Amino acid sequence: MVTNEGTPFEGRILRVAGAQIRNVVGDLGGNAERILAAMREAEEAGADVLVFPELALTGYPLADLVQRDEFVDAAMATLDELARSSGRMASVVGTISRVPARRSWDVRDRDIANSAAVLCDGQLRGVYHKLMLPNYEVYDEARNFAPGSRPDALWRVGEAVAGISICEDLWSGDGPPESQAAAGAEILLVPNASPFHQEKPAGRRALVTEVARRNGTPVVYVNCVGGQDELVFDGGSLVLDAEGELLHRSPQFETESFCVDVPLGPPRRTAGQATTVHARPPRAREPLPPPAKPAAEISADEQVWHALVLGIRDFLANNGRNSAVLGLSGGIDAAVTAAVAADALGPENVIGVAMPTPDSPEDELHDAEALSVGLGIEFHVIPLAGITAAVRRGLDELLGGAPDERPSEALAARTRAAILWTISDQLGHLSLATGNKTELAVGNAAVYGDMAGVFAPLKDCPKTLLYRLALLRNERGPAIPKRIIDRPPTVRADTYGELPGYAVLDPIVERYLERGEALDDLVAGGFDAPLVRRVLQLVDDSEFQRRQMAPGVKITSRAFGQDLRMPITNAWRPYAGDHEPPIEVPLNPVRGDPPGAE
Amino acid sequence: MVTNEGTPFEGRILRVAGAQIRNVVGDLGGNAERILAAMREAEEAGADVLVFPELALTGYPLADLVQRDEFVDAAMATLDELARSSGRMASVVGTISRVPARRSWDVRDRDIANSAAVLCDGQLRGVYHKLMLPNYEVYDEARNFAPGSRPDALWRVGEAVAGISICEDLWSGDGPPESQAAAGAEILLVPNASPFHQEKPAGRRALVTEVARRNGTPVVYVNCVGGQDELVFDGGSLVLDAEGELLHRSPQFETESFCVDVPLGPPRRTAGQATTVHARPPRAREPLPPPAKPAAEISADEQVWHALVLGIRDFLANNGRNSAVLGLSGGIDAAVTAAVAADALGPENVIGVAMPTPDSPEDELHDAEALSVGLGIEFHVIPLAGITAAVRRGLDELLGGAPDERPSEALAARTRAAILWTISDQLGHLSLATGNKTELAVGNAAVYGDMAGVFAPLKDCPKTLLYRLALLRNERGPAIPKRIIDRPPTVRADTYGELPGYAVLDPIVERYLERGEALDDLVAGGFDAPLVRRVLQLVDDSEFQRRQMAPGVKITSRAFGQDLRMPITNAWRPYAGDHEPPIEVPLNPVRGDPPGAE
Repeated sequence: MVTNEGTPFEGRILRVAGAQIRNVVGDLGGNAERILAAMREAEEAGADVLVFPELALTGYPLADLVQRDEFVDAAMATLDELARSSGRMASVVGTISRVPARRSWDVRDRDIANSAAVLCDGQLRGVYHKLMLPNYEVYDEARNFAPGSRPDALWRVGEAVAGISICEDLWSGDGPPESQAAAGAEILLVPNASPFHQEKPAGRRALVTEVARRNGTPVVYVNCVGGQDELVFDGGSLVLDAEGELLHRSPQFETESFCVDVPLGPPRRTAGQATTVHARPPRAREPLPPPAKPAAEISADEQVWHALVLGIRDFLANNGRNSAVLGLSGGIDAAVTAAVAADALGPENVIGVAMPTPDSPEDELHDAEALSVGLGIEFHVIPLAGITAAVRRGLDELLGGAPDERPSEALAARTRAAILWTISDQLGHLSLATGNKTELAVGNAAVYGDMAGVFAPLKDCPKTLLYRLALLRNERGPAIPKRIIDRPPTVRADTYGELPGYAVLDPIVERYLERGEALDDLVAGGFDAPLVRRVLQLVDDSEFQRRQMAPGVKITSRAFGQDLRMPITNAWRPYAGDHEPPIEVPLNPVRGDPPGAE
Repeated sequence: MVTNEGTPFEGRILRVAGAQIRNVVGDLGGNAERILAAMREAEEAGADVLVFPELALTGYPLADLVQRDEFVDAAMATLDELARSSGRMASVVGTISRVPARRSWDVRDRDIANSAAVLCDGQLRGVYHKLMLPNYEVYDEARNFAPGSRPDALWRVGEAVAGISICEDLWSGDGPPESQAAAGAEILLVPNASPFHQEKPAGRRALVTEVARRNGTPVVYVNCVGGQDELVFDGGSLVLDAEGELLHRSPQFETESFCVDVPLGPPRRTAGQATTVHARPPRAREPLPPPAKPAAEISADEQVWHALVLGIRDFLANNGRNSAVLGLSGGIDAAVTAAVAADALGPENVIGVAMPTPDSPEDELHDAEALSVGLGIEFHVIPLAGITAAVRRGLDELLGGAPDERPSEALAARTRAAILWTISDQLGHLSLATGNKTELAVGNAAVYGDMAGVFAPLKDCPKTLLYRLALLRNERGPAIPKRIIDRPPTVRADTYGELPGYAVLDPIVERYLERGEALDDLVAGGFDAPLVRRVLQLVDDSEFQRRQMAPGVKITSRAFGQDLRMPITNAWRPYAGDHEPPIEVPLNPVRGDPPGAE
């Protein structure tokens, strides 16, 4: 329990606790246990109010699970149990609730809200319903939720008057926080489920500061922690005073309970009716002891590392697994995947398998082995030659021509995937794909090959980032062989001609996909026009490949998948020359940076 | 050009043409050509107004393609060209357009509307913006579109006053059509992009009838035709008079132009301002000749067959392919997939490959060959034994124990998939997966195995439907061997015990997934409680497998994928006994109905 001293007791304070907890989608029992434990701890610390993350009881995001009546019933019954367990302290618990059916943006009635329930004295005192339902990028809250309709709801806790907003409600500039402050809220309590990407933490801090200053109210911003499918929630909860000064910041990527004395300033006049949570006068009490310093901010690349580790760990844990198998090629992708997995699961729970073809250079096999030694993971070698030769012999009649004993890279990649899945099937390890965002963007990923696996941790990591991550990991002691980091990556020569190095490719891809820049913008930004056309054409061509890829951790502002959803069939090819729009099934990456085992 | 007689010329008529065209997402040039051709044809037929489907110019659904400014610019420029080509007839063209940025359900500004542009006399006369943006099931229009704000917009075409609504606008019961009729609309023109599922055509007819009767206005409902990724638009456009009587019905699953004299009844008083499209008095003209009879309604299973054929054909065509390869097991799934593909592409463009293991019964191989003869498709046999034995030998050291020369079904299925992809890579045929909805629902599909392919036509077809489809296909002449249809399917014995036959399994799955029924509903419906628990548990367990499957044709009211989106990690297991929630990576279907080659 982290506490602060509070400002000198010149005025009224509200003692606010926050529970930056991990919750799991659908795990009503487990989430309720974690909520109850936090309620007991905060009550003991003498908190007046305890704030949980958004949908803390149900997990986030719920997608169509909200449509299951029996799930909604179970969540509401569990909330009732939590209410009965509540004490003198008010608890603000994110959950779903039934509301009168309403129509908004379409003709479908919706009767489930994304809510914050206020529990106190063994009872449910009231429920706030989120008004702003984000429906872009990874969010689809307008799909299943009914919006709330009371932006100015107020809550009286003893002598304090609080407003409650949920996540997106905060971001409008003219939304519930503003309505609540205008109506007399002296403090804003904000449950959140805010997933990580590289620019998120700084944006979040700036936003919360602005809300506090604009409204002249302290803000208690509580986020959750943990991996949920493709999202990682990074915590970093914040408590700011009415001037926007930081009273507390929770660490990222780990759970934390905190309790802070928040100064409220002079009482405000309240417009409208506040729901009374309780009307007891504040107890006489000493200010809290001196504060722990706010959690240190960590570097951008460190944040990514933590996100990847947490993403793998929780995906496996949530699905009852604790060990992983992956292909080791001697390349950087496999090296970083293995290192992240070793940090997430412990090296003893990671199995690396090298699957060289006759073309694979000896030194890459040695590097793969050196990597496994550096990380302390299990290592096996399964030569592919016999297997792919058997496939080729089977195909000779059909394909005609002279038997080709050297497999295509795509066949090698798919054979590797089949082997890894068989190991997974037989031994219960979860198979990790090693592909990165850049190759996924430009179509340099064999379907069922290098993107094949139950989870693809690096799916949203640009290639150039992987080198930085490898160097970062080695700062803790040499683990990834220097030769792997130093070897220049090979970029495939595709059907449209030679591609540039990743130092050029990555910014083009980022600006096209994440910034929404088009050809003209990129050329104005100094990139070569024919080159940009070729890269954008490749990105447009390869949506199909991205549709069947394994899930992985979102770390950029736009990740492939739910976050960036393009039609598979899209005849719009503004960057095409006289090329036919192909489905790029045949993939023949040049050797040196082979897919499938990397 | 289909025409009708119109009712006897007792009053004013509006001569309305409809263009039930195929359009392709992103194909601005091709879509514009098709639009222009329809405009010329209808103008020649003397139509007063021509109605196109929703987003006819851009294709539907657009997903995040709407976020590309350069695409929006290109669409708007193409619309300007179409406007310049317009003549004396008014054309209602579905497209996207820029509108002042607005916020609605979240804090994101949106400035692109889903619109209907009204073109006449070489000019763009105005634009209606869709108000109701469906955001459920396969629809995500609240993701990127700004809603319109003028439900009562009216359009004066000569002496007639028309209202325009777009698709979902029609379904509210108290939406734009009602506002427009109240404001004086004498006819409702409705562009649609309404995708097929089994219950859709009847629902559509009932709805349009109700709208006509409620408002006392004729309704011209124009739908598009064609496959777009997982959706098939089935046409079936409708023209109803003010009493809701059918004046015209277009066929399903094919394009059609029509032109109908629609009686308007006595003039109405117009409230508010109607935008004048043109103010010319009607030309003296003869009523149109006697109508063709409305297109015949086809049986439910025939509709599914057509949807599958169109879905495959357009997916391939849209992606520049015209030939397909698939595995032939001798089972019903592969038989129906092959027959649909032969109908879609021509038998000469379909290649079947049998890939038997040493365990595969001789008669199934013979059936596979007989099927290829019956359909007239190419046939090859590639025995798996040598290949899977090579994999096993490679794995012996790692897996330990005695070498297992008989591959698991999962390994066989994945090996088959790798072989088919290699053929696809080398010869350019697109690979079709053969899995069905039932096995996908209960987790009886090997990832990268039987659901592996570029397209999975039967992905949304319950197993029992496949037998009906096979019999239907054979009515045109024997093609699918009787032995394939007669052989009882084998249902795997899973970790939770023996499953029932498909005649029991399919209704449970349908009621759970499509009707939203829970355990209690199903038990009340007469199903055995322990059995239902086991089936629902299997469905809940296997979401992970469904995340990496190939796209396929939606034919039921809820298809897996975008339409029915569950979290991968979902700890809510109300039907679990003391089983751990597993990721069902190991899949060991019993033989007889083998996955992967079926």
